[in-house]
Amino acid sequence: MLSQNKIKYLRSLELKKNRIKENKIVLDGKRLIDESINQNVEIEHIWINNLLELKEHNNPFINKIKNNGIHFSYENEKNLNKISNTKNSQGIIALISIDKFYNENLEKFDDKVIILDQISDPGNLGTIVRTCAWFGVKSIILSKNSADIFNYKCVRASVGGHFFIKNLAYLSYKDINNFISSNNLITFRSDLEGEKIDNKNIHNNWALILGSEAHGVSNKLNFDKKITIPKKGQMESLNVSISAGILLNELINKS
Amino acid sequence: MLSQNKIKYLRSLELKKNRIKENKIVLDGKRLIDESINQNVEIEHIWINNLLELKEHNNPFINKIKNNGIHFSYENEKNLNKISNTKNSQGIIALISIDKFYNENLEKFDDKVIILDQISDPGNLGTIVRTCAWFGVKSIILSKNSADIFNYKCVRASVGGHFFIKNLAYLSYKDINNFISSNNLITFRSDLEGEKIDNKNIHNNWALILGSEAHGVSNKLNFDKKITIPKKGQMESLNVSISAGILLNELINKS
Repeated sequence: MLSQNKIKYLRSLELKKNRIKENKIVLDGKRLIDESINQNVEIEHIWINNLLELKEHNNPFINKIKNNGIHFSYENEKNLNKISNTKNSQGIIALISIDKFYNENLEKFDDKVIILDQISDPGNLGTIVRTCAWFGVKSIILSKNSADIFNYKCVRASVGGHFFIKNLAYLSYKDINNFISSNNLITFRSDLEGEKIDNKNIHNNWALILGSEAHGVSNKLNFDKKITIPKKGQMESLNVSISAGILLNELINKS
Repeated sequence: MLSQNKIKYLRSLELKKNRIKENKIVLDGKRLIDESINQNVEIEHIWINNLLELKEHNNPFINKIKNNGIHFSYENEKNLNKISNTKNSQGIIALISIDKFYNENLEKFDDKVIILDQISDPGNLGTIVRTCAWFGVKSIILSKNSADIFNYKCVRASVGGHFFIKNLAYLSYKDINNFISSNNLITFRSDLEGEKIDNKNIHNNWALILGSEAHGVSNKLNFDKKITIPKKGQMESLNVSISAGILLNELINKS
């Protein structure tokens, strides 16, 4: 059974400073945990509501946990609810390690990279991660002043998209510029004042740069081209995750 | 000064049943209210934090309210906070009428329509409204079991996109099918198992049908073509507002 100290520890990971110190997060819900197993994420332990044990004999999900040799135990609902970070907990919670997601070795980054500058809304960030996972973009660079990609709201919005990220780094503007130039990436910056994206100019090696809705992309970032999504109405702007989706579709499916 | 009864009335509009009965909602924040003035929305009254009156003489926003002949008054912060539906109220709140948004006269609907079936998350719905406003799509039809488009979370997510909707209706599946056939619309249904969208087949008159992430589009809806967004990664699905953005970009900008 979970000790009060362990419960306190698991809850402490809701705070960014503790996540960064421990390099661990709590996953909440079957769908997320199932996907983390599929993607060979390092799972430290899974806690399952003991009512599920009684109700579901020979449960395929529990069999999958057993077959993968993952540590797990049954726990009472009251304790699980204390750790849960969702409104309607399904009673399945995991502690996972996240240090393998970060990759300081920039040489391993792909030739298709998304660079996010000052994105502050974790819901938008999570939706962008999910969209990257759909389009097979596995390398994400964030400016240092962006939201934490392991914020629980972000993890929920990405619905498991995190587990497809292979290269992740928070970099200074200087290091982002160095990364772009040393990798000869064609860089597209999403901007209200840019050109319509021209499919003839899309090469295999590119970086797509998106900024926050409030502040845009910092002028400290170098880029080749400002691109825009042609507008037909009078609306001032698009949600940043929508812009990311439309531009990734152009870059991935039209090149 | 706002009476306690009036405060109670304004707060009651947070509930869908009261919004539907009264056909009124509370807008919260300068950006939203400013856009509602620009788009000639019927504004009943604006309440402004009386600290703003003292601080900002000859304020252009207050001049704009005056020049448009809109009723307004100053109010103490405590009362305004009671009515506010945002975390960090800016101290500017408006009561507006929404009955002009609904249009039972389906003949007035455009030849470019988005049909939303069972979309339950108000944040996603609001982002879709904002995206429609960007692409100039002014007609939105929702199935009866969809979220309320005037839910405050939806209004906030659309950042004023609502004010560009010209035709809005909640219809039964039967009435949606009748609408499609009597208007000779080409209908595209977003689906994981569909075909890649073929730009040659896009005509000027179309309806894009999107369903909820959990339930998809009901089989009770007629459609010509299932379309899909080609995927390159292993992610199971896209957020519905991302799908809407990508498909609207194809339909609007590529036809």
